Amino acid sequence: MSPSAIQAELTWIDGTFLPGIQITVGPGGRIEAVGAPEEAPSPILRGTALLPGFVNTHSHAFQRGLRGAGEDFPAGAGSFWSWREAMYSLVDSLDADTLHRLCRQAFGEMRDAGITTVGEFHYLHHREPGDFAFDEIVLQAAAEVGIRIVLLQAYYATGSIGKPLEGAQRRFATPSLEGYWRQWERLDLATDGATQTLGVAPHSVRAAGLGEIRELYEEAIRRRRPFHMHVEEQRGEVEQAMAAYGRAPMAALCDSLDIAGNFTAVHCTHTDPRDMARFLSAGGTICLCPATEGNLGDGIPDLSSPLASGSLSLGSDSNLRIAPVEEMRWLEYGQRLRGEFRGALADGRGRVATTLLAAATVGGSHALGVEGGRIAPGHWADLVAVDLRAPALADVPAERLLEAILFGSGNEAIAGTYVGGRWRETGAPSA
Amino acid sequence: MSPSAIQAELTWIDGTFLPGIQITVGPGGRIEAVGAPEEAPSPILRGTALLPGFVNTHSHAFQRGLRGAGEDFPAGAGSFWSWREAMYSLVDSLDADTLHRLCRQAFGEMRDAGITTVGEFHYLHHREPGDFAFDEIVLQAAAEVGIRIVLLQAYYATGSIGKPLEGAQRRFATPSLEGYWRQWERLDLATDGATQTLGVAPHSVRAAGLGEIRELYEEAIRRRRPFHMHVEEQRGEVEQAMAAYGRAPMAALCDSLDIAGNFTAVHCTHTDPRDMARFLSAGGTICLCPATEGNLGDGIPDLSSPLASGSLSLGSDSNLRIAPVEEMRWLEYGQRLRGEFRGALADGRGRVATTLLAAATVGGSHALGVEGGRIAPGHWADLVAVDLRAPALADVPAERLLEAILFGSGNEAIAGTYVGGRWRETGAPSA
Repeated sequence: MSPSAIQAELTWIDGTFLPGIQITVGPGGRIEAVGAPEEAPSPILRGTALLPGFVNTHSHAFQRGLRGAGEDFPAGAGSFWSWREAMYSLVDSLDADTLHRLCRQAFGEMRDAGITTVGEFHYLHHREPGDFAFDEIVLQAAAEVGIRIVLLQAYYATGSIGKPLEGAQRRFATPSLEGYWRQWERLDLATDGATQTLGVAPHSVRAAGLGEIRELYEEAIRRRRPFHMHVEEQRGEVEQAMAAYGRAPMAALCDSLDIAGNFTAVHCTHTDPRDMARFLSAGGTICLCPATEGNLGDGIPDLSSPLASGSLSLGSDSNLRIAPVEEMRWLEYGQRLRGEFRGALADGRGRVATTLLAAATVGGSHALGVEGGRIAPGHWADLVAVDLRAPALADVPAERLLEAILFGSGNEAIAGTYVGGRWRETGAPSA
Repeated sequence: MSPSAIQAELTWIDGTFLPGIQITVGPGGRIEAVGAPEEAPSPILRGTALLPGFVNTHSHAFQRGLRGAGEDFPAGAGSFWSWREAMYSLVDSLDADTLHRLCRQAFGEMRDAGITTVGEFHYLHHREPGDFAFDEIVLQAAAEVGIRIVLLQAYYATGSIGKPLEGAQRRFATPSLEGYWRQWERLDLATDGATQTLGVAPHSVRAAGLGEIRELYEEAIRRRRPFHMHVEEQRGEVEQAMAAYGRAPMAALCDSLDIAGNFTAVHCTHTDPRDMARFLSAGGTICLCPATEGNLGDGIPDLSSPLASGSLSLGSDSNLRIAPVEEMRWLEYGQRLRGEFRGALADGRGRVATTLLAAATVGGSHALGVEGGRIAPGHWADLVAVDLRAPALADVPAERLLEAILFGSGNEAIAGTYVGGRWRETGAPSA
């Protein structure tokens, strides 16, 4: 790829939309310069505004196969656990070709919706027991769609605390810590370290013992890799940990581990505010998935603990709906509905939209260890182009354009994305 | 308009998507026949599925002018009441041309998003004091966009219980019951009774006394018109009514009025479940506005009372975001988040999506007194065409297509709408 230049009508530079900005992209796909056009100006993307590409911090791409499923309740009310049975049925049925197709569909929809990096929390490893055949399929699909991926390679050893794996869970099995790292290193050699990188991800306290989690975490620190884990999405998980460890999962993690900035706890729906404050003040970050948490009836987390910049991110999780702008606004709306006031996630200057955008850009980049989230030299040229001619944005002044996009528009206003400077128009065929 | 025929790949007929259905539209814009194509089949809308057009039961179109506004909180957390100040500023600033443009934008976005009928809860009456000049502007804009409208002409007499109108509220003023009905009858003569009809709408117990509400309601019953009112959106309103009447607004209404099927209570966020059950069992219906209620930090209502078919509807309210599919799923998600279980609004057979679609079609038609909401002879030929080639719907089997649309897609999957058999493609210019 040769150096190229990108110019839109408006460009989001550190908190403001500016006109007349040219972004120069180097041959490796990073931004080389941001500023006024020099000499021969590049053609302008008319009627578009550029934002940093959205980062989807937590995805299970294969669950795209459940689109529209699991919404029947002939036996009365359902729960996360009954939904999990539907998901395990899908897991049981998947072959390599279907998985490949589902991943392409999910990643294609993500780019259509403005996502340029996905943190794929990947626990569906095996076609045949122990073969890890599905790991490369996910990476392959991401490469085909041209989405940047951080494969959060999951460690999955127990069916619940201290219990063996059962049924569909066997497709998730990691044989041992040694076996896990052997596969991890094989994948690490196969990825390019730029468009594809690896993270470390014990699935949850249900699927990994505290000792294993500690060993995995220490190794992730040593290797300077992101470390992700599901934490306290369901009250059942908290209760199981109370019974086994005498503490909630987040408390057990804070007690056992030297929490640092590479630790992302996903969900934290039922996390005690004191545990949350302890985790955050140690540098840990949290990832919420509002649409999935709404669909699964998880609940609304308490986000009243002080959130440092970059400590909050967003994920599409089950991919039942892929719409980061919708996730952003419902992140704030959940807090508003919970507390019956407005402006829950306002930044230091009282602005909410900047916090929501930061969660989908800076926060996600931080959680995944990717140099993205800002339109600035040295960062990846990962951008989303918003269609200023979308009726939802008509007659909106520039000073409240970000608010209009995040609170008042959606996927239909996304014109396309750049990943490493390569353009893909929304609606381009992907599967 | 001459009779015409519409045929899509799939058509939603009373709970199922069926292929090979032709809809014949009569010259007046009603459906004349639904069935297998006869003789010369009509051209098929390839790659689309038809649903009954969505009914937006509660809208304030002029608030489109707040798109992206009111989301700054420099003084700390905000509330419904601080947002209302921003809305009143807009009211103060509006002239006729701006109002006309805002209404065209809002109604155009509605058609783009699949809405074919709007219940416009209209209280912004006056350009100059007492002139009611803005009423016709709203009707005119709806006619230009080709959206069916039920103008819910609002009665607005007090600033809060027993208090005079202040500031911007003067643009809402209805001079007296007699003056209200005089203008109502003038408008009723000016509307065609088909694409445009009228309803009766005391704004709330804040803006109308109980005696006035009773008189308005009895007259609405006599005239067989829908009757809408904001009820218990905010705790402050409940507290004011407790102080003035010794009862919450819903209890006061149930005590004072002989509630019937033409009464739609909008919001009911803080309604006591016993009052709600009493209101619903008398035949009253409720309208929820999930996106606005989320944005305004109202709270999540308790919908555990039995809901008869057609007793629930949905509105875009502030029009900060116009996306009925998003509203449908978040109606259910709100209940799931509140109760921490799934399937809150399941119908008698355990299906949630049918309840959500009914709220946006049958329920809205019932609340607005419009013969719509079903694809059946005698009903208006108001339809929404869903794009089956949208990536969000790829590889979804027909038996879960409705669930995939409602839980997994959005505005970007809406191909266009028919109102009275007249087609408008999503994205067509409207303003």
